[in-house]
Amino acid sequence: MQRPKVDRLAVESEFDLAAYFGKKVAAVERALDASLKSSTPETAKIIEAMRYSLLAGGKRVRPIMCVAACEMLGGTETMAMPTAVAVEMIHTMSLIHDDLPSMDDDDLRRGKPTNHVVYGEDVAILAGDALLSTSFAHCAKGSSEARVPAERIVEVIRRLGEAVSEVGLAGGQVMDLECEAKTDVALEDLTWIHTHKTAKLLEVSVAAGAVLAGASPHDVSLCETYAKDIGLAFQIADDILDVTKSTEDLGKTAGKDVDADKTTYVKLMGLDGAREEADRLYQEALSSLEPFGDRADPLIAIAKFIVERES
Amino acid sequence: MQRPKVDRLAVESEFDLAAYFGKKVAAVERALDASLKSSTPETAKIIEAMRYSLLAGGKRVRPIMCVAACEMLGGTETMAMPTAVAVEMIHTMSLIHDDLPSMDDDDLRRGKPTNHVVYGEDVAILAGDALLSTSFAHCAKGSSEARVPAERIVEVIRRLGEAVSEVGLAGGQVMDLECEAKTDVALEDLTWIHTHKTAKLLEVSVAAGAVLAGASPHDVSLCETYAKDIGLAFQIADDILDVTKSTEDLGKTAGKDVDADKTTYVKLMGLDGAREEADRLYQEALSSLEPFGDRADPLIAIAKFIVERES
Repeated sequence: MQRPKVDRLAVESEFDLAAYFGKKVAAVERALDASLKSSTPETAKIIEAMRYSLLAGGKRVRPIMCVAACEMLGGTETMAMPTAVAVEMIHTMSLIHDDLPSMDDDDLRRGKPTNHVVYGEDVAILAGDALLSTSFAHCAKGSSEARVPAERIVEVIRRLGEAVSEVGLAGGQVMDLECEAKTDVALEDLTWIHTHKTAKLLEVSVAAGAVLAGASPHDVSLCETYAKDIGLAFQIADDILDVTKSTEDLGKTAGKDVDADKTTYVKLMGLDGAREEADRLYQEALSSLEPFGDRADPLIAIAKFIVERES
Repeated sequence: MQRPKVDRLAVESEFDLAAYFGKKVAAVERALDASLKSSTPETAKIIEAMRYSLLAGGKRVRPIMCVAACEMLGGTETMAMPTAVAVEMIHTMSLIHDDLPSMDDDDLRRGKPTNHVVYGEDVAILAGDALLSTSFAHCAKGSSEARVPAERIVEVIRRLGEAVSEVGLAGGQVMDLECEAKTDVALEDLTWIHTHKTAKLLEVSVAAGAVLAGASPHDVSLCETYAKDIGLAFQIADDILDVTKSTEDLGKTAGKDVDADKTTYVKLMGLDGAREEADRLYQEALSSLEPFGDRADPLIAIAKFIVERES
């Protein structure tokens, strides 16, 4: 059946995020599956524990943003995929360690028992450590095989390493633990926590994609601003959903933050203030992508999806 | 006072390990101290926890072997130092995580309370994660600044990453946990465990030093054989000391392995058999270094020190 030409154009001019996501998620899942295989009986157990969490689903937002940024700046999916896998390994490590009894003590993640519930705390800690270190080895080896120039790989690894350091995930998490005990957390402390705990890995995913493509420092910096803004907007959206949605809508317990008297953007800025701040960050993120024209369509659509999500 | 010429020559011809170690330890301690500084109040706590364990002393054998291998193959201390710091960060992470209540549950390490006793389990886990990821960032950034060609840095990072993966520290540790419950551990399983849990990080320290210097694959492989043999000999020496020395001699509880009915080289090979195996590995290690002549003196002396130690 041939559709009228005008309609086809109209359809084509509107970026189809669902189709884009479907294709990219499939490619990322294939690469994740291929990234961890046990080659000897001795490694069967730890590989099983690593794969249990790495292949447990999830939206794969970070790896897709890494690939999207690389393609936006003239690179290819092949060049970006080893780093895309690496950021998902890092994200998975952070979830396994966050769920531990001495941290958030969560028994369920995405409807499945958490890693330490299945494999024990000791193996869960080691599976996380192995995922973290393997992420760097995988990025180094895979990117070389994809013929990315070595200077770019070194730069990407420096950024990945910093993203989990004291100025990244781990630092944000320690600061969050310190603030949990306080009732008077300032807005700037809350923003510091989420810039590092939440936004940093999104930021490095997008920036690394740009670096792999050989982008100029200015373009890399635009990508960082975009991702940092979206990372914070993501957290604010989370805080808003916690008070506006039901447990049924969310698929997880609503009102948790208020019950725990947790410092959130809604608590510090009010519901309207938080909505305005999320919108301001979203607009700032989009304007960072303006120089890239319609090559930025995937990253724009992902930003919209993250900020406007209903759960 | 002028000593007779003949005596001076005799002294100079015998490699002075104590003087060499003294100089190298000082350089490594300076580099470790400079590697972690808190730049903002928000990172003060996690940096304190990371520094607490990283700067808690220790023989610094791995970083010194990294520098020694690099210098043996025509490289410089400056080229090797960022990687030397990285391997000590990785070693420190493994000690912090090994000491956790869900792992070995140790309260003391080198006469000081362990990291989780001082900072809590949650911060100790995060400090370990941050040390692990920072090791890669530090190696990438510092080696670039030391003008090591990027291809060599990428190769070193691939090796470092694998050294903590399922075919490294974490894999060896998981296999060790699995074998703890068994009474009939085979010699090949014991060797697999210690090749990965104990020897692998020594191996990568020496091999990375060689790679940084631009060594040929053949020379890198000789370095690996040397370090793997010495790593296993180190473990066998440990097993022997546990049954031949008193608690007072060792500065730690003697006879622990027998009391726990732990599978050791002594249990599987007998005391004489274990001694013969350690000597065989030591001789094999030295013969791997033969092609390097007297440039191998530091690595030969370190091997002797490791195998012949009394505690």
